[in-house]
Amino acid sequence: MSGLSESQVIQILSEHGGARRTDVVLGIGDDGALLQPPKAQQLVQVVDALFEGVHFPVGITGENLAWRAFGVNISDIAAMGAEPAWATLVLSMPMAEESWVRSFARGLGDCTREFNISLVGGDTVRGPLGVSVQITGFVPPGQALRRQGAAEGDGIYITGRTGLAAAGLACMQGEIQPENEPGEWRQRFLRPVPRLRQGRDLRGIASACLDISDGLLRDLGRLLEASSVGATVFLQQIPGLDELSAMLGEQRALSLSLTGGDDYELCFTVPREREALLAEVSRKWSCECTRIGEISGSEGIRLMRDEREVPLPPAGFEHF
Amino acid sequence: MSGLSESQVIQILSEHGGARRTDVVLGIGDDGALLQPPKAQQLVQVVDALFEGVHFPVGITGENLAWRAFGVNISDIAAMGAEPAWATLVLSMPMAEESWVRSFARGLGDCTREFNISLVGGDTVRGPLGVSVQITGFVPPGQALRRQGAAEGDGIYITGRTGLAAAGLACMQGEIQPENEPGEWRQRFLRPVPRLRQGRDLRGIASACLDISDGLLRDLGRLLEASSVGATVFLQQIPGLDELSAMLGEQRALSLSLTGGDDYELCFTVPREREALLAEVSRKWSCECTRIGEISGSEGIRLMRDEREVPLPPAGFEHF
Repeated sequence: MSGLSESQVIQILSEHGGARRTDVVLGIGDDGALLQPPKAQQLVQVVDALFEGVHFPVGITGENLAWRAFGVNISDIAAMGAEPAWATLVLSMPMAEESWVRSFARGLGDCTREFNISLVGGDTVRGPLGVSVQITGFVPPGQALRRQGAAEGDGIYITGRTGLAAAGLACMQGEIQPENEPGEWRQRFLRPVPRLRQGRDLRGIASACLDISDGLLRDLGRLLEASSVGATVFLQQIPGLDELSAMLGEQRALSLSLTGGDDYELCFTVPREREALLAEVSRKWSCECTRIGEISGSEGIRLMRDEREVPLPPAGFEHF
Repeated sequence: MSGLSESQVIQILSEHGGARRTDVVLGIGDDGALLQPPKAQQLVQVVDALFEGVHFPVGITGENLAWRAFGVNISDIAAMGAEPAWATLVLSMPMAEESWVRSFARGLGDCTREFNISLVGGDTVRGPLGVSVQITGFVPPGQALRRQGAAEGDGIYITGRTGLAAAGLACMQGEIQPENEPGEWRQRFLRPVPRLRQGRDLRGIASACLDISDGLLRDLGRLLEASSVGATVFLQQIPGLDELSAMLGEQRALSLSLTGGDDYELCFTVPREREALLAEVSRKWSCECTRIGEISGSEGIRLMRDEREVPLPPAGFEHF
């Protein structure tokens, strides 16, 4: 075990800094990075910070932490319908322990190469374990997906399933101990897979879109607020809810699916006349694409089971 | 005194988020910001994090902290010869105390408006007091100033004076208590003024450039290493050294001037044939511009007093 100097940490992280991109004129090592933006594209910038004990439990590996920190940011890029390109990183850690830094660098390398991202800058500081990532991506002008734009009658969709990452976290923390815990659950929390392809395919189809980081109802609520509309959500259409209920009981399953965060699925709305087009493109996706409700003119979210309205569960994640 | 929610913090910071820029298509409030890059410019990206107890002493005001966090990043933009445009911010604090957040927002607003920067994204987390700032700027293709490029015979210059910020910090920490402490000293630490105009003017004149954040000799050393050259520095040419010696004694003055960090002056090299041009442009600057030495072919830094070589003082700031 050895404490690395700042320049050694930077050296290790730079070596694993992901894809070699020809638009990176000058990467890590000067006062700043020098980047060549593509012609006729707009830029999308996102930033998200993860700190130990707040956004992830004590003891997760460096590799998983790096993947998660980049994954959640790439998810924001996906939610805008953009392509990620360049990232900067601020890594705070109590001690620069070499094997941990190398593990972190591996996760960083895996995730950035997977999604063709180049690490172009960063800073390391001594402090509590935390990672801030900032990513810049590209999107054709006028085609970015936004939270506003949903209109009455639009279908409400989600990719994949919600509640699984929160179930994985609950297992890691010993809150629940299901008999046959699917291996996928913890992976969903530790290594979220951003829905980049889906976001890109939704350009010109979705009327509004965001990613689900703090729970389905909470994030859908943000989309509704930005669009000044309301929604009706049909419980029997939430994908995987029955399976989850069979394993964990109905109350826990409902709470996880509707308010559990960290799934990084996309939630989006599609006008009726484009729903056939969505059915076509989503057939090629590797994940489910499910219509879970409909935009209404009234405010707020109405939750329906069969034909009856049911009360909303308490809200999702609050940072302060 | 009241603890604010995350959305209240974001609201306050957004309101003070600096200049209104027409190239910000969509600012804070969605999954990401949407930005319109200028035609025929390259981008410069910088990132720097400041944590309490490491980069600034306990007890500085929110206003000063915000200015300092943005100032040091803008300084990196200046050192590349670029213009700042867009910033993102990660603010970590133990508690979202309203008056502190408002004070921070004021400093943020002052600094970003002063330098025409728009805050386009951010994240807030509960944790030890710390600020990470990332700034994107513009520079004409091929005109960015870099650390590499200095060649034998080039003059070595600095803007302003070094050691004053470190003197201010030493006063704040009670390490030194000079009789007539110049008010400027603490200001230099708390509110560094990035040399944006100077960096821009140095395009096409300087052969290499960086900003002095960790001490003159240490940062000059980085420039030399990137350029694969050495340097001779003449002590009698270091600006303000005599004044500082008269106030604090020679040893302390030397140590502050040569190894004291946090000045955010530019250190740059200029080929002989462009030194007259530099003299001309620097005449319009509001700060000094001083030739302190010369690039040599041999490695390392030789420090000269009159005609005799003197030993180097111990190095500047190390983060780990």
